[in-house]
Amino acid sequence: MPVLVMKFGGTSVATLDRIRRAAKRVGVEVAKGYDVIVIVSAMSGETNKLVGYVEETSPLFDAREYDAVVSSGENVTAGLMALTLQEMDVPARSWQGWQVPVMTTGAHANARIEDIPTDNISAKFGEGMKVAVVAGFQGISPEGRITTLGRGGSDTTAVAFAAAFGAVRCDIYTDVDGVYTTDPRICEKARKLDKIAFEEMLEMASLGAKVLQTRSVELAMRFKVPLRVLSSFEEMDDTAGTLVCDEDEIMESNVVAGVAHSRDEAKMTLVSVADRPGIAAAIFTPLAEAGVNVDMIVQNISEEGRTDMTFSCPTNQVARAEKAMEEAKTKGEINFHGIVADTNVAKVSVVGIGMRSHTGVAAKMFKVLSNDGINIKVITTSEIKISVLIERKYMELAVQALHDAFELDKSA
Amino acid sequence: MPVLVMKFGGTSVATLDRIRRAAKRVGVEVAKGYDVIVIVSAMSGETNKLVGYVEETSPLFDAREYDAVVSSGENVTAGLMALTLQEMDVPARSWQGWQVPVMTTGAHANARIEDIPTDNISAKFGEGMKVAVVAGFQGISPEGRITTLGRGGSDTTAVAFAAAFGAVRCDIYTDVDGVYTTDPRICEKARKLDKIAFEEMLEMASLGAKVLQTRSVELAMRFKVPLRVLSSFEEMDDTAGTLVCDEDEIMESNVVAGVAHSRDEAKMTLVSVADRPGIAAAIFTPLAEAGVNVDMIVQNISEEGRTDMTFSCPTNQVARAEKAMEEAKTKGEINFHGIVADTNVAKVSVVGIGMRSHTGVAAKMFKVLSNDGINIKVITTSEIKISVLIERKYMELAVQALHDAFELDKSA
Repeated sequence: MPVLVMKFGGTSVATLDRIRRAAKRVGVEVAKGYDVIVIVSAMSGETNKLVGYVEETSPLFDAREYDAVVSSGENVTAGLMALTLQEMDVPARSWQGWQVPVMTTGAHANARIEDIPTDNISAKFGEGMKVAVVAGFQGISPEGRITTLGRGGSDTTAVAFAAAFGAVRCDIYTDVDGVYTTDPRICEKARKLDKIAFEEMLEMASLGAKVLQTRSVELAMRFKVPLRVLSSFEEMDDTAGTLVCDEDEIMESNVVAGVAHSRDEAKMTLVSVADRPGIAAAIFTPLAEAGVNVDMIVQNISEEGRTDMTFSCPTNQVARAEKAMEEAKTKGEINFHGIVADTNVAKVSVVGIGMRSHTGVAAKMFKVLSNDGINIKVITTSEIKISVLIERKYMELAVQALHDAFELDKSA
Repeated sequence: MPVLVMKFGGTSVATLDRIRRAAKRVGVEVAKGYDVIVIVSAMSGETNKLVGYVEETSPLFDAREYDAVVSSGENVTAGLMALTLQEMDVPARSWQGWQVPVMTTGAHANARIEDIPTDNISAKFGEGMKVAVVAGFQGISPEGRITTLGRGGSDTTAVAFAAAFGAVRCDIYTDVDGVYTTDPRICEKARKLDKIAFEEMLEMASLGAKVLQTRSVELAMRFKVPLRVLSSFEEMDDTAGTLVCDEDEIMESNVVAGVAHSRDEAKMTLVSVADRPGIAAAIFTPLAEAGVNVDMIVQNISEEGRTDMTFSCPTNQVARAEKAMEEAKTKGEINFHGIVADTNVAKVSVVGIGMRSHTGVAAKMFKVLSNDGINIKVITTSEIKISVLIERKYMELAVQALHDAFELDKSA
């Protein structure tokens, strides 16, 4: 039998009624002839409650005990989902991570899946079981202790099972009905995409479109697992949601697939840095060591041996970045006159694999922004993405203008 | 190092503050030089919540999934207790049932412990760990699935660990400060016992003194594990609580150790049964097959080939008993004129190992009741217990009068 993986997030299993609704969708796929692996999250709110207990008990907690506590939410949902399916006469049973076993690294609270042996579950499919319900987000370390996978862990579990079992597809049920050309809350013309390439989804995800965790998209791309994102609150339909797939499977596409944005960016400038060969390394090595995620970098033209160095990083890492820079100055590794942090900025990006073969996208983007009087502070580009840092108050305007200019409301 | 087992029930770990309080008690025992095994229940209310989920999802639930769901409450407490101890600089870690592993039968929701290998935990004690926190109430079946032990499971887990590790004692922390000569809510002269023999405790437990589950007392008696029952809400003190131990360790004791009572009894009479050899078997076999727990039995003197047969059973089994009797009558196995069920009764018992060597306890009991005008409906006796069924309204009076008559307010 072909295997289908279905993943239900916390809001999709928040109550017994919603679990029943999710189970009905599973039943529909079973009726089509699939052996189904269902990956479940904890009922929404449960994981936060458990994390709260742990943090209140021990602010610098032992991550092994943290994992033992917070993994229990998924176990409850897995058992309840199996019971619900049984009530619908669908042969089902639950698996906790250690029972499969989902073998992970020993990096507690942020483990990576290393292997998923398929024999236990496959044997049960062979005996007539139709649905294996697996608790997401968790595994077992080489020492036999429970691990959790960190943020987005259940999506990652789902993709890893799809890869291990050679599933035809991995359906991620969530509370949005797919991936949009841009954030519908900002741009009312935003259009749901039927398909998006893995690479585009990766850029969209890492740029602030919070539908799928980057990590699960990376894994799906590596193992070529088609991912479908769809809402568990809408009618079922074979064309529902958005399929995230290999670019070969997308016949026609717009040059630009979407416009992403992020408010969570800060612009930092080291003013009047003493310039010399190796100065970039001297600045960015201590930042990396301090755990600052530097995104964009701009260096002004050097005059009289001094230059301004500008970079962007997440807003909540500004203090850490300043501390690292002051320490490097104290040690004599770098020399500058001052640090200016500007948190009043936003990042807007256009993303699309079509940019590889089409020129002029950057020029068009800059012209659109210029026409609306929006000043660009920093620019970065990749093969399939152009990002700009602008003043925050222009973010919505920029997103709307770019969405119009690239005609994203029309499909290819 | 000598091993001490400490068990904390649901009310003793109901909040993070209470877990902290319990952890402090553990710290005190560690400071005395013990290696401590802590058995924890779920935070109070959690198990009921999970059972509610399961029953609402599937009234005739698969017990394997029930176990997977309800066992999660204990896992949460175990992790939190380990973290709390670590915060107090006490080296500790948690174990879930399958990690020990606590090997049980495959009788889901009501499994029995078959073996507890000590090597994993002992090895950690050898490496300097001072406290193993174990999730109570759970184990793993021969098929590798999670089992739970049914009612009183955490007490049973604690005693089983004490037996497996040859612990010096098993301390059961609960919300009462020990075992009393009788129910203090009924008799204000009730006195806390310093010691009570296993056999006496068994009779007291099964007769309605709800401090310890019968099953855990049986296990403690079999393996001669001294059990101490004490409150987690009172000051710690070496003489706190009640020690349940082998009778050899009790030098002096009253002939009667306590007065137990139970409201949950019904008296059933089969009126005018056609008497013949084997009639008792013909009546009580179908009752046993119907799952009716018959306690006391009285047969009147047979007149003209007919007799009245009276027995007692739990109030909530009356309907089941009536059905079984009517069916046996329909099949022609027995013949009677009618069934009279009297739920307006209560059972009062005096218990004491001293009764083995002292005569006259029964006579004294009957005289005391008679003096207060209390009519005895049914009597049963064992080697260390005399029970009577009386009209329910006299229950409190009977308990008080017997407590006075046997001078239970005074220690031996």
